[in-house]
Amino acid sequence: MRDFSTDHRWLSLNTATVRKQGDLTQIIEACVRHGIRAIDPWRDQVAAIGLDRAARAVRAAGMELSGYCRGGMFTSDAAHGLPQYSRPGSTASKDIAEARSQVGDAVADMMDYARDAQMPLAIEPLHPAYAADRACVNTTKQALDICDALDPKHTGALGVALDVYHIWWDPELLPQIERAGKDRLLAFHVCDWLVPTKDILNDRGMMGDGVIDIKRLRSAVEAQGFAGYSEIEIFSNDWWEKPIDEVLRTCIERHRSVV
Amino acid sequence: MRDFSTDHRWLSLNTATVRKQGDLTQIIEACVRHGIRAIDPWRDQVAAIGLDRAARAVRAAGMELSGYCRGGMFTSDAAHGLPQYSRPGSTASKDIAEARSQVGDAVADMMDYARDAQMPLAIEPLHPAYAADRACVNTTKQALDICDALDPKHTGALGVALDVYHIWWDPELLPQIERAGKDRLLAFHVCDWLVPTKDILNDRGMMGDGVIDIKRLRSAVEAQGFAGYSEIEIFSNDWWEKPIDEVLRTCIERHRSVV
Repeated sequence: MRDFSTDHRWLSLNTATVRKQGDLTQIIEACVRHGIRAIDPWRDQVAAIGLDRAARAVRAAGMELSGYCRGGMFTSDAAHGLPQYSRPGSTASKDIAEARSQVGDAVADMMDYARDAQMPLAIEPLHPAYAADRACVNTTKQALDICDALDPKHTGALGVALDVYHIWWDPELLPQIERAGKDRLLAFHVCDWLVPTKDILNDRGMMGDGVIDIKRLRSAVEAQGFAGYSEIEIFSNDWWEKPIDEVLRTCIERHRSVV
Repeated sequence: MRDFSTDHRWLSLNTATVRKQGDLTQIIEACVRHGIRAIDPWRDQVAAIGLDRAARAVRAAGMELSGYCRGGMFTSDAAHGLPQYSRPGSTASKDIAEARSQVGDAVADMMDYARDAQMPLAIEPLHPAYAADRACVNTTKQALDICDALDPKHTGALGVALDVYHIWWDPELLPQIERAGKDRLLAFHVCDWLVPTKDILNDRGMMGDGVIDIKRLRSAVEAQGFAGYSEIEIFSNDWWEKPIDEVLRTCIERHRSVV
């Protein structure tokens, strides 16, 4: 297991963590100030400043990308002309098995595009609390089943993004991380699960403030050979209220002490 | 699958559903008014009026019990002198695997007592959103694994209580219901998952107001031979505000139309 206690070279910032404190250019400038050398931007943040300007800012700062968020919403009207399976009070379907099947089909479609762009796709299982309205891939096993079905030869084109917030509770987690192995482990995201959780979407915790044994999970992915960034992604009404430098200083300190 | 559309003989009321509208005596009187013939009371409601009075009220009304809620809290100080594994900010452990092991041991202890009292024990897996502070048995598979370990001969002493709110998202659910079989299926609880869910504990929905395909899940347990009550358990700040007769009328109507 890598020693994170002496520096933060393996810290990446998912830019949603500070999305209310500035635009992507300002976030990149703040990362440079704090010696953070990788980010994972969101498409809406890139669109807000324009793709060219975003690409120039990343290159000028010499930054790496640990990811690019995100595709999905496959079961909504917009994606496939199909009703969102979970929209209550409408005539939409409640068939979650069918929704999951649609998602598998959509990932298969997306792989063709991603392969041409030489971009590996990572499926991120989201916490079961989001099964109704955000994602119907809710466990690491489900995500890996899709990988095995669509990329049986382990070409590197498809894998998983594991976020401790979504997976820490799963009794099948450790064997599934072993099953994943190095080539399917494309990203590792950290934050924490607070008690109480006041808002299931936007009350995630800073690492160390909650109940997740983050070091144990990092140890499990590193035992498979994962050697990428530990990406901090915190959706939090509390942390969005704080100055960006305070957030980044705290991220760095916690990365060294509890991640 | 039984036809529920013409009457509500298989409706049981979990009395937490109307716990703010009256004490257990008043709840039983309301059930009698609405022809509800079974309840599942909570220990605190029984304690509030006294066990003798509660027992007399149930017998006088000719009611059946579909359950009695609840034991648990095995990892807290009170139960075993052990720290609650999930208490954040304290020195408590974050080892969820150890907490799960403690729960298995505690259920084993409880079985001796329950056997003497001729009371079957039902393990209710709770939604993964509660893994930090309410229950670390979070899937039907986990609950059945405990049953198989502690009651390998299927004596009827141990089984599961399945609540659609907790299990509807689980991609492994249908095979696990098959695995359970009739003798492990001790209770079936219904409510609904609202979108959005404003509060993960106390914003459960009335059947039909959310995204759960309740009939499909009832069909799955009945395919295994389950022939017990369909127990309505709704923790809801909204429904607790309404008059008890309105709540029970709605429960009966939805039991007939969407359960």
